[in-house]
Amino acid sequence: MKKYLFGIDIGGTSVKIGLFNLKGNLLKKWDIITNKEDLGKHILDDVYKSIKYQIPNLEEVDGYGFGVPGPVVNSKIIKCVNLGWEDYDLISIFSKLVNNENILVENDANVAALGETLHGAAFGYSNSAMLTLGTGVGGGIIVNSKIIDGAHGAAGELGHLHVVKENGRLCNCGNYGCLETVASATGIKNTFIELQKNSNIDSTLKDKEHLSAKMVIEAAKKGDVLSLEVVEDFTYYIGYACSILSIITNPDIIIIGGGVSKAGIYLLNKINHYFRKMMFEPVKETKIVLAKLGNDAGIYGAASLVKNDR
Amino acid sequence: MKKYLFGIDIGGTSVKIGLFNLKGNLLKKWDIITNKEDLGKHILDDVYKSIKYQIPNLEEVDGYGFGVPGPVVNSKIIKCVNLGWEDYDLISIFSKLVNNENILVENDANVAALGETLHGAAFGYSNSAMLTLGTGVGGGIIVNSKIIDGAHGAAGELGHLHVVKENGRLCNCGNYGCLETVASATGIKNTFIELQKNSNIDSTLKDKEHLSAKMVIEAAKKGDVLSLEVVEDFTYYIGYACSILSIITNPDIIIIGGGVSKAGIYLLNKINHYFRKMMFEPVKETKIVLAKLGNDAGIYGAASLVKNDR
Repeated sequence: MKKYLFGIDIGGTSVKIGLFNLKGNLLKKWDIITNKEDLGKHILDDVYKSIKYQIPNLEEVDGYGFGVPGPVVNSKIIKCVNLGWEDYDLISIFSKLVNNENILVENDANVAALGETLHGAAFGYSNSAMLTLGTGVGGGIIVNSKIIDGAHGAAGELGHLHVVKENGRLCNCGNYGCLETVASATGIKNTFIELQKNSNIDSTLKDKEHLSAKMVIEAAKKGDVLSLEVVEDFTYYIGYACSILSIITNPDIIIIGGGVSKAGIYLLNKINHYFRKMMFEPVKETKIVLAKLGNDAGIYGAASLVKNDR
Repeated sequence: MKKYLFGIDIGGTSVKIGLFNLKGNLLKKWDIITNKEDLGKHILDDVYKSIKYQIPNLEEVDGYGFGVPGPVVNSKIIKCVNLGWEDYDLISIFSKLVNNENILVENDANVAALGETLHGAAFGYSNSAMLTLGTGVGGGIIVNSKIIDGAHGAAGELGHLHVVKENGRLCNCGNYGCLETVASATGIKNTFIELQKNSNIDSTLKDKEHLSAKMVIEAAKKGDVLSLEVVEDFTYYIGYACSILSIITNPDIIIIGGGVSKAGIYLLNKINHYFRKMMFEPVKETKIVLAKLGNDAGIYGAASLVKNDR
């Protein structure tokens, strides 16, 4: 008898595995190390062994959902640079291992957005968007409770919204002025360093070693003028991104997640302030909220792929 | 026996009515005047009479699709300012008139995008976006061959993308710097007038009466330097809007329609130039094309709603 679902979130460092009941409740979760040797060919085998160890009778598993760090189009993985996968047929490889055809795969940021929508911060809404502010900036778009992949798997790649028009910094993607260059943890730190160089304003963080986005936001909360300027800068850009989202897919709710979002309601108020200055009036009911599931969003969303496919 | 579909595009001046066979081929089309008296309460009755005159036996009609000039959410018309409709229950009113439950309604710009996608410039693609450059700027987003409405019926309201960061002009929506203020026919004319005031560059259009966007684009094609500057300005903003679309829903194809798009391949090349400068590299296969159906896009799309609903 079918009793379980698995939600599996494959990252460049670790694979998070979530065991769920058929209602989508998380029963157990654990991590394994991502073995990237030999172009990532051992990863799925490691996942299989780890699952088999927990649930010896795989007949009890209804299906498996995966989040992977790269673009996915129509269940096909285009490329996962961090894993060494290219045109990788995860579904057929894993379905042979577990002897189950019910395998689904989507991009990890999209899967996290789905998890937050169905089980987290946007519970109860079917149209949402998520912005993940971490080392980089990612995102996902949900319409009618389904992930939008896009033609090239690039739907929801919100980190590469071109937001800085003049003198934008170089982004990892090769463009200048992407949202990621200003609103990621790295971007926030870089803005502080740049402002410090070009201004006479003193700061409690002056010449601090190991400067981080978190330190800048904490200092701003305590009234550090230079840090506050940095916070106004990046929350403006996030508010701008929200204003764009609100008239393209026009979600009910926009979720702000990732490490930077731990700055909490302080951050949210500033984002809302800028959003409301720029928004198209008919979307004024759009909610902007903080993510709730943290690092579990991926496994929740991955497991939801299986349930959602019915 | 069911033989026909109707696609009905309700505008502020006229209602376009298209009679289609069940395959979606247009058999006949005509216009009636939009009677806006008494808060638009006669419009549907006029449509009914006009249809009944053409097809006396309404038993032969499978269904009716409508495009309306205002936001629609889950088949509910929120507001059509130009018609006098507010929370207007088109479906139940019209279904009583024609004694048929198969009535569908969507926003007119969205319906036009659907028409171009299923029967026009984006035929063969299921993910598209349309930008309509007319007196104003409108748009529509299609994902998996379906219209995206959004939570407040504002999905695809591309005219209100905030694109001019500094000294943007006031938009009809109350914001400053919307795409509509620079890329609509009115916006193009206004940019010319502004540039002429603030520059010493001579122009063949100097002091011309009844200046229009068309005249500016034609002059630019002939090498008029001031007009060329205007064209570079607004095609930059359209290219920017395309770059945004390409990483939010990441369509296969973006359709440029409306009166301004009659400038043809000349315009398309410039839009493509700016899009390619700003785009996220993985979406480089995104196509940008000119609309094909002109004013018929709405009736095609409206009729498609009926077929698509199966």
